[in-house]
Amino acid sequence: MEEKMNCELEVSRRNFLSTSGKILAGTAIASTVLASQADKAHAYGYETGFAYTKLNPEEVANITYHNYFKRWCASSVIAGFSELLQKKVGGLWKTFPIDGMRWAHGGMAGWGALCGTLTGAGTICGLCTNDTDVAEAMANDLAFYYSYTELPSYTPPGKPEKAEIHHMTMAGTPVCHISVGRWMRAEGSAFLDPERAERCARLAANIAMETCHMLNDHADGKFKPKHALLFNVAANGITSQNNCMDCHGQHVPAPDTYATLKK
Amino acid sequence: MEEKMNCELEVSRRNFLSTSGKILAGTAIASTVLASQADKAHAYGYETGFAYTKLNPEEVANITYHNYFKRWCASSVIAGFSELLQKKVGGLWKTFPIDGMRWAHGGMAGWGALCGTLTGAGTICGLCTNDTDVAEAMANDLAFYYSYTELPSYTPPGKPEKAEIHHMTMAGTPVCHISVGRWMRAEGSAFLDPERAERCARLAANIAMETCHMLNDHADGKFKPKHALLFNVAANGITSQNNCMDCHGQHVPAPDTYATLKK
Repeated sequence: MEEKMNCELEVSRRNFLSTSGKILAGTAIASTVLASQADKAHAYGYETGFAYTKLNPEEVANITYHNYFKRWCASSVIAGFSELLQKKVGGLWKTFPIDGMRWAHGGMAGWGALCGTLTGAGTICGLCTNDTDVAEAMANDLAFYYSYTELPSYTPPGKPEKAEIHHMTMAGTPVCHISVGRWMRAEGSAFLDPERAERCARLAANIAMETCHMLNDHADGKFKPKHALLFNVAANGITSQNNCMDCHGQHVPAPDTYATLKK
Repeated sequence: MEEKMNCELEVSRRNFLSTSGKILAGTAIASTVLASQADKAHAYGYETGFAYTKLNPEEVANITYHNYFKRWCASSVIAGFSELLQKKVGGLWKTFPIDGMRWAHGGMAGWGALCGTLTGAGTICGLCTNDTDVAEAMANDLAFYYSYTELPSYTPPGKPEKAEIHHMTMAGTPVCHISVGRWMRAEGSAFLDPERAERCARLAANIAMETCHMLNDHADGKFKPKHALLFNVAANGITSQNNCMDCHGQHVPAPDTYATLKK
């Protein structure tokens, strides 16, 4: 996997640089050095007793959707898997407190940082796999999917729990505040409107479904990461996303900004 | 607790509005309505088999610090608790895969969203308590502590693992990218420098120590939240932080921006 990752890292880095408007000779050189250093991050296997068996993605999504209105984003994704795995596998799934991750809702108790659907999904990936490279590749692919897919595309069978909604939006980021804000602007909804809750419930269902596809592939021995790990550090010289201008405007720091301060 | 929270919510809302430069009559009215709606969020108890017994915060911090250099931010905080609780309590702690949360490093596989130390700490709070109100109040207090304390203040006993470091910074946010970027600027370090790893390891130790203080208080029946839950939704009409101008500059949307779009 490592060789493939290195190749993808380079492709990802080039794609990013070519679209970010930051192509400078110095930047490219700094990024290559950073990519090489980032590759040295050590991955390793670990033991887990949380066994996974292939699940029906639609069923996982449906359970997630209906759980949202009590458990909110993070725990509803966990419920989508755990409620089924408790029955189909049993064992440790009966011991994991689904609501023990509810604190992650709204980007950590409403602080708007990492979308709770991703905290829930990442937790499931980490419990169900046994190699940091695999769990982190899944988390990375999920962050790409979340950021660059028009969501929510999931539609509940039957009557919606809260409201009909009319828009899908592309977040450009896994950050709750920006993601939900962009959707609210498109839909014309306030945060506490039933439409916003409906949107986040459907989004949680989408993320659970995507996670289930990856875990099913992994169970079949055919999971392949779509994106390079740590592309962000390689491209920007810091943990980051690809939406630099959302916050920095035209004044995006170069990747080697802080690397050169001491030189 | 609910009555106390309502009171604190109001205080927090006023404090925030009075310092944010956004005091407008319409804003204040909208915020009051939002605060009232946010209060309706339902908290509930849940079962967990992950028993907690009081731990020595310095010991937890030290284990967290040394784990960082293999396991990174999220899993190192979990290791700080789990390695001790496996010995002192046993039971389910022997079954939880510490490395199953490593994907959360660097704000989710390096995406720079929620600092992984908080994902790790929140997970421990959620596993060790049995009421969403309590776990979320701890997560909320941790986000305040992380955002508004000069960190890292933790100093390892003996020789540092990677490097001596010279600066503490106030993040103003629980977001990894901004937090680590502010420290890198102060220290003059690049992300892959040993100093940056040293900083994040010490920060993880600080967060683990603060979490341990809260859980010890809770074990003694004297944990009291310092801050109101969902102050962010009440103040800003969206999941958010108090650092609006960091990204929005002078153009911070009013709390009721989207609430009024349909009216």
